[in-house]
Amino acid sequence: MKRVISVNPATGDTFELDVDETSIDEAALACTHAQSAAPELATRSLVWRAEMLRSMASELEANAPTLVELAMRETALTRTRLEGELRRTAFQLRFFSDVVLEGSFLQASIDHATDSPMGPLPDLRRVRVPVGPVAVFGSSNFPFAFSVPGGDTASALAAGCPVVIKAHPAHPATSLATFESLFRGALLVDAPKGTVNVVFGLDAGIALVENPAIRAVGFTGSVAAGRALWQRANARATPIPFFGELGSANPLVVTSRALVARAGEIGAGIAGSMTLGAGQFCTKPGLLFVPEGGLGDELVAALTDALRELDPMTMLSSAIAHRFYDGVRDIDNVPDSHHLVGDVHESGANAQSQLFEVTSEAFNQRSSSILREECFGPLGVVVRYRDADDLRAALENLEPALTFSVFCADDDPDARWLVDLGETKAGRVIANQFPTGVAVSWSMQHGGPWPSTTTPGATSVGASGIDRWLRPVTYQAMPASLLPEVLRDENPLGVPQRVDGVLQPRA
Amino acid sequence: MKRVISVNPATGDTFELDVDETSIDEAALACTHAQSAAPELATRSLVWRAEMLRSMASELEANAPTLVELAMRETALTRTRLEGELRRTAFQLRFFSDVVLEGSFLQASIDHATDSPMGPLPDLRRVRVPVGPVAVFGSSNFPFAFSVPGGDTASALAAGCPVVIKAHPAHPATSLATFESLFRGALLVDAPKGTVNVVFGLDAGIALVENPAIRAVGFTGSVAAGRALWQRANARATPIPFFGELGSANPLVVTSRALVARAGEIGAGIAGSMTLGAGQFCTKPGLLFVPEGGLGDELVAALTDALRELDPMTMLSSAIAHRFYDGVRDIDNVPDSHHLVGDVHESGANAQSQLFEVTSEAFNQRSSSILREECFGPLGVVVRYRDADDLRAALENLEPALTFSVFCADDDPDARWLVDLGETKAGRVIANQFPTGVAVSWSMQHGGPWPSTTTPGATSVGASGIDRWLRPVTYQAMPASLLPEVLRDENPLGVPQRVDGVLQPRA
Repeated sequence: MKRVISVNPATGDTFELDVDETSIDEAALACTHAQSAAPELATRSLVWRAEMLRSMASELEANAPTLVELAMRETALTRTRLEGELRRTAFQLRFFSDVVLEGSFLQASIDHATDSPMGPLPDLRRVRVPVGPVAVFGSSNFPFAFSVPGGDTASALAAGCPVVIKAHPAHPATSLATFESLFRGALLVDAPKGTVNVVFGLDAGIALVENPAIRAVGFTGSVAAGRALWQRANARATPIPFFGELGSANPLVVTSRALVARAGEIGAGIAGSMTLGAGQFCTKPGLLFVPEGGLGDELVAALTDALRELDPMTMLSSAIAHRFYDGVRDIDNVPDSHHLVGDVHESGANAQSQLFEVTSEAFNQRSSSILREECFGPLGVVVRYRDADDLRAALENLEPALTFSVFCADDDPDARWLVDLGETKAGRVIANQFPTGVAVSWSMQHGGPWPSTTTPGATSVGASGIDRWLRPVTYQAMPASLLPEVLRDENPLGVPQRVDGVLQPRA
Repeated sequence: MKRVISVNPATGDTFELDVDETSIDEAALACTHAQSAAPELATRSLVWRAEMLRSMASELEANAPTLVELAMRETALTRTRLEGELRRTAFQLRFFSDVVLEGSFLQASIDHATDSPMGPLPDLRRVRVPVGPVAVFGSSNFPFAFSVPGGDTASALAAGCPVVIKAHPAHPATSLATFESLFRGALLVDAPKGTVNVVFGLDAGIALVENPAIRAVGFTGSVAAGRALWQRANARATPIPFFGELGSANPLVVTSRALVARAGEIGAGIAGSMTLGAGQFCTKPGLLFVPEGGLGDELVAALTDALRELDPMTMLSSAIAHRFYDGVRDIDNVPDSHHLVGDVHESGANAQSQLFEVTSEAFNQRSSSILREECFGPLGVVVRYRDADDLRAALENLEPALTFSVFCADDDPDARWLVDLGETKAGRVIANQFPTGVAVSWSMQHGGPWPSTTTPGATSVGASGIDRWLRPVTYQAMPASLLPEVLRDENPLGVPQRVDGVLQPRA
């Protein structure tokens, strides 16, 4: 047995948790527990399910001081940031309890028996049911909101699916403590045993993806790790859906018209956004398209000045800092890239902000493909462009991303085509704001075409995140007593139903 | 260049089409055409898109006599069946024009800027946009409804996606003629060039899946072919979603209570359903769970008698008949399987109905796994069970399927658990009806967990089929003039919108 080790990235201090890395057998047992819980969890009422989510939120809040202390020690993120993130995480659980009670996620639809041009049609009623046990892989960069108690867990539980969560090795103590809060929250409302489970260690994580009881996977992390696990999900005798949020370079475009009167403000704003949380956001703006010429120079000067004023930051782990500096060196080696801020010398888990500048010609070289990939950390690449044609050529070369930001003026002649192009390249297109904030709301899309995610139709933040854990079932000619309540004509729960093709909102 | 050859399975006669198998370069060109059409197709109005679908339906109907003659010659299916299928196919195109105009498929959602426990939230608006060019692989068994002008094509066009369709080699002349109808329908409403495209030949089909312009694939066919293409879609540098409807053994359970007074009627009904279209339905009931004892014997006798009265049937091709007899021989070789109707001797494209009987013990043997797989053609396996425990053990061993049918009595003590179990094993659970009919409607689910489909959350029939070809995009802080019309506050098209979390049906 190997103890789970927690590392303080700021000091390098380690401490042993009172828990072992999960063995393959124990991981299998966790999946079995989840599988046992699945049928009962699926049939508990929506009201109960909502209550469980709220109970978990309250337990997290009740334990907030301890959780924040643990996370500070393990992630080197600030108290303010972590307190905010924990608030967001509790809010997210309550938000999903609202989504459950609202009931649209069921997509209840009733077609009464009728005649048609093809002859008589039977009574058909369709609803979405939980897909079964879900494996969740938490991320390194959000120890609460995209980790054990995060969006994948909240949305899977909201869908009625038990979860088996693989704790991220960068914050095992936080993972264990937040898991215990979820577990207590579940216990307080008498949830079925096996509703929430946690495992530690890489091998245990792989075992989850390959376990026959697991019916879907949620993942937030790197392209390399995500693609490897996705391949394992596909290689199963019975493949399962894998929803991975992978890497994203997040382009941000500034038009020449936007520079007028705002060059300095936008430059300083970019500096803040790209270094938030030491640049360790999935939505960090990493590719900055700025016009050549004087006003563009002004923006770059403001950005450079703001970055130079920042102290070195502690990254989530020295391994992550090491990978960051690998990226810095790669970009430094690209011909014609100018290293405006920072240098290539690494020092433990510390990172200096980094800024590079290239011309659009250099950016478009095939040999510069490294520039188009995400470099996780406080690093930006400014791409200087000459005119709209030049800009368009550079943007059409981009890999899809989670976000695409456009800074433009009112009646900007370039705004229309930039927004249209952005829509083909990202799941969220933003006007005159920075992409780092990701609201938990009905209208959020946190996803995009490969490589930003494995599944362009899905989102890992917002109400529609629940869609990933549901599958539709149609009941044909089913006696009312055998139908789920939400598919009965009298609609006792008052959920939205589509009746004979006509959408009826909540009764 | 190799001419495309059409074969009449009833006579073995062949004739050359006035078209060559598509070269790899030509397939790439078709994808390029589709890609060129995509941006304009995406921005045409919903009203126009609906009109295009109706125009295609009218062209198919105008050409019905020719299309039905061609399909009769290539498939050996009856005139009545093919006339009905063509009606259904035109209906399906018009149904999707209704789905487009209704507008729910857009999932338009508006969250106005607001304050939240986490601070101010920006204005966020989410809608689903077309995913881009879609490759469609038609099936052998429905030359209209699941082929060139079928559900995948109709739903992809409804979503605003151009299509490149790979014609099935079992009915190339029908494919070409139906394609020409779609093409004329598109031309009449001035659709962008490249909206619909067709290719012939296996290599061209593979080239579609691997072409960077293709953004999603729809497939109906066998597990082997589907899994192979799905693997190619996953092996791309940029993997794409692959929606395959594969194989399904379609269990049908008869309870002891259902046998009372209905044994003979159910037996005869099964014979009709399992031999419809020479048993070449994805939803053919293939596994028939019947109680041991006298009333069960009565059902099996009625089923046996009805099957013995049937003449040999011509299958869709001699290759399909050959694979069918491979399956017949495999099942015949299973220890303890009793061959009640038919024999193992094949004859060209002809097939005799086949019925086997096994005990539930024999069925549950690991060595009998072939019994749990689909055998495409007029074949059924009767599994005789002793009691509810015995039945449950057999059913829990099943592979997931498209359908799960339960014949039960009013207040049947076994109905509840059978429906609950059926829901875990299939996308459609049916009470006291046969599964072969698949209605085009809002509430249809034609899908299920692997191996019945690659994607348990999707359906290839019914309104929700459109979901496969859409991906969400959120606009943040976007000026109204740059928003899609369906996301504007004034909602000029009157589509359903969710506004600040509250679902608003059509204005």
